[in-house]
Amino acid sequence: MSEDLSQLFVKIESIDYYLPKKIETIETLIKENPDWSIDEIKKKTGVHNRFISATNETALDLGSKAADKLFLKNDIRSEINALIFVTQSPDFVLPTSACIAQEKLGLSKSCMSFDVNQGCSGFIYGLAISSSLISAGLAKKVLLICADTYTKYIEKHDRTCRPIFSDGAAATLISKSKNSNIGPFELGTDGKGAMNLIVENSGARSSDKKDDFQKKKLFMNGSKVFMFSMNEVPKCVENLLIKSKKKISDIDLFVFHQASKVVMDNIIRRLNIPAGKVFCNYTDVGNTVSASIPIALKDAENKGIFKNNKLVMMVGFGVGYSWGATLMKWGGK
Amino acid sequence: MSEDLSQLFVKIESIDYYLPKKIETIETLIKENPDWSIDEIKKKTGVHNRFISATNETALDLGSKAADKLFLKNDIRSEINALIFVTQSPDFVLPTSACIAQEKLGLSKSCMSFDVNQGCSGFIYGLAISSSLISAGLAKKVLLICADTYTKYIEKHDRTCRPIFSDGAAATLISKSKNSNIGPFELGTDGKGAMNLIVENSGARSSDKKDDFQKKKLFMNGSKVFMFSMNEVPKCVENLLIKSKKKISDIDLFVFHQASKVVMDNIIRRLNIPAGKVFCNYTDVGNTVSASIPIALKDAENKGIFKNNKLVMMVGFGVGYSWGATLMKWGGK
Repeated sequence: MSEDLSQLFVKIESIDYYLPKKIETIETLIKENPDWSIDEIKKKTGVHNRFISATNETALDLGSKAADKLFLKNDIRSEINALIFVTQSPDFVLPTSACIAQEKLGLSKSCMSFDVNQGCSGFIYGLAISSSLISAGLAKKVLLICADTYTKYIEKHDRTCRPIFSDGAAATLISKSKNSNIGPFELGTDGKGAMNLIVENSGARSSDKKDDFQKKKLFMNGSKVFMFSMNEVPKCVENLLIKSKKKISDIDLFVFHQASKVVMDNIIRRLNIPAGKVFCNYTDVGNTVSASIPIALKDAENKGIFKNNKLVMMVGFGVGYSWGATLMKWGGK
Repeated sequence: MSEDLSQLFVKIESIDYYLPKKIETIETLIKENPDWSIDEIKKKTGVHNRFISATNETALDLGSKAADKLFLKNDIRSEINALIFVTQSPDFVLPTSACIAQEKLGLSKSCMSFDVNQGCSGFIYGLAISSSLISAGLAKKVLLICADTYTKYIEKHDRTCRPIFSDGAAATLISKSKNSNIGPFELGTDGKGAMNLIVENSGARSSDKKDDFQKKKLFMNGSKVFMFSMNEVPKCVENLLIKSKKKISDIDLFVFHQASKVVMDNIIRRLNIPAGKVFCNYTDVGNTVSASIPIALKDAENKGIFKNNKLVMMVGFGVGYSWGATLMKWGGK
């Protein structure tokens, strides 16, 4: 368990998200893969709809649209002094998506901007970095964009990845607050699992000099990633409870990374969390990588599940392996 | 000018760096490009030697070697609770280089790990994030690795990029301290210049579906990047001086990103900094992107230029456009 004595006087002010227009249902999958079973996919993944970015639509586009939606309600773009773009599907290896987004969104030139490369734990990591920048006095309002287009990396006949992953983006506004509303954090890494969820030939470690686009495909060792989730995620939750001197009964709502039905069901069972305390939206949205937690938070808010000062635990985990969890008082001032 | 009221009780504990074995001199360039002039290259870039990574040697390899050198002197790997890997030449789009490095370096599983995508301003950004994580109580000891292999993106006959860029990596250990030794920070972005220093067809915004390796090349609009440096860097330095209530005469040493001779000479002239106050090592090392400032700091230390409690201003700038500057008390406790 990592030490964390943080008192973070920060809050999530608002969240918005954007999903691409094209929806792919299980029926589409079956049409293209007649040997797959609808029932089995429903039972295992629980995902009925996935959102697919258009060929010329990138994570940067999705992320910018999510931020535009956020600014439509409250145009504070001139006040943003940090922009963090969490993605594993950047437009270019250089420059960063954050720098392009700074211009695209009309943010101030005195806004620091950088990309964070992190996957399914990316929102928790982004929140930890945002909260730290604010807490340390380096920023007052942080725009945290989480956006990915994993479907571009997935083959038509990939039974492990295609039924799960969805494209999407969320924009979260984090700002200085009077009270401590976020934290502590529990964050960890186990690079031993790095090769079990990977896009090979996608960077400098390329086995193929010709760098064939067709070889740039997502590979997931489903059973190993499942085992990792069963081992590390409950431990991460328990460590955060110890660190924050809370019990599961003190937590009003759990929002996990929307990995898939089988992963979530087993984590919930292992931790003995009452089902009513867990918010899930993977059925309609799929697994949107780093955007999945903020999209779920927004959906929970829209459904009226969140009440002010409810204590929410958020838990992200996946590629790396990497994991992270934190607590938040929803609507805290 | 961005606001920054930070009091950061952090210090740089140690730095180490690693450069690849292969050295390319100006003479090699001329042999392969008989129409280029040695005198002109010397006059403009000032770079006599550049370091070239081997075909199968990536930024992750260089960064790990730099960290190994650091741990050789002081093996505190079990105490590292945050690993930040700054790179624009990752092994893969996913997983992150940081996660792979966590395992490779034998760091604890309770170490948070993530990549930051940022270029020539990357060390200053990494230092801002590291300092914030420590200041907010999320980490006590941060390992900041800055590593890039830009030469892999550069064509043999590219007269703008090839004479300047070098591959290299630096590992910097940042830790909690009794006094405030780092900060304030001045950080900014201008995405209007994003397309003037870019590797096209290197990510999701690919104009070519076949993603031909040959088209994945660094492009730099030299005169536009030069103009940006002349406009923004002096402003950035002046803003930091105002913010910290210092004058140029209060600063003992300036360590700029080692862009090239012509850029550095002109910045120094515009700011009226006495030449003796500026440390340069671009002649022997070249422009190593985000690693250039920590490599220069280490070289300055090795040459005995640093004395304890000397006040050093560090300034990074480039691709994005992105820039950042901060102050540091060298050897501060």
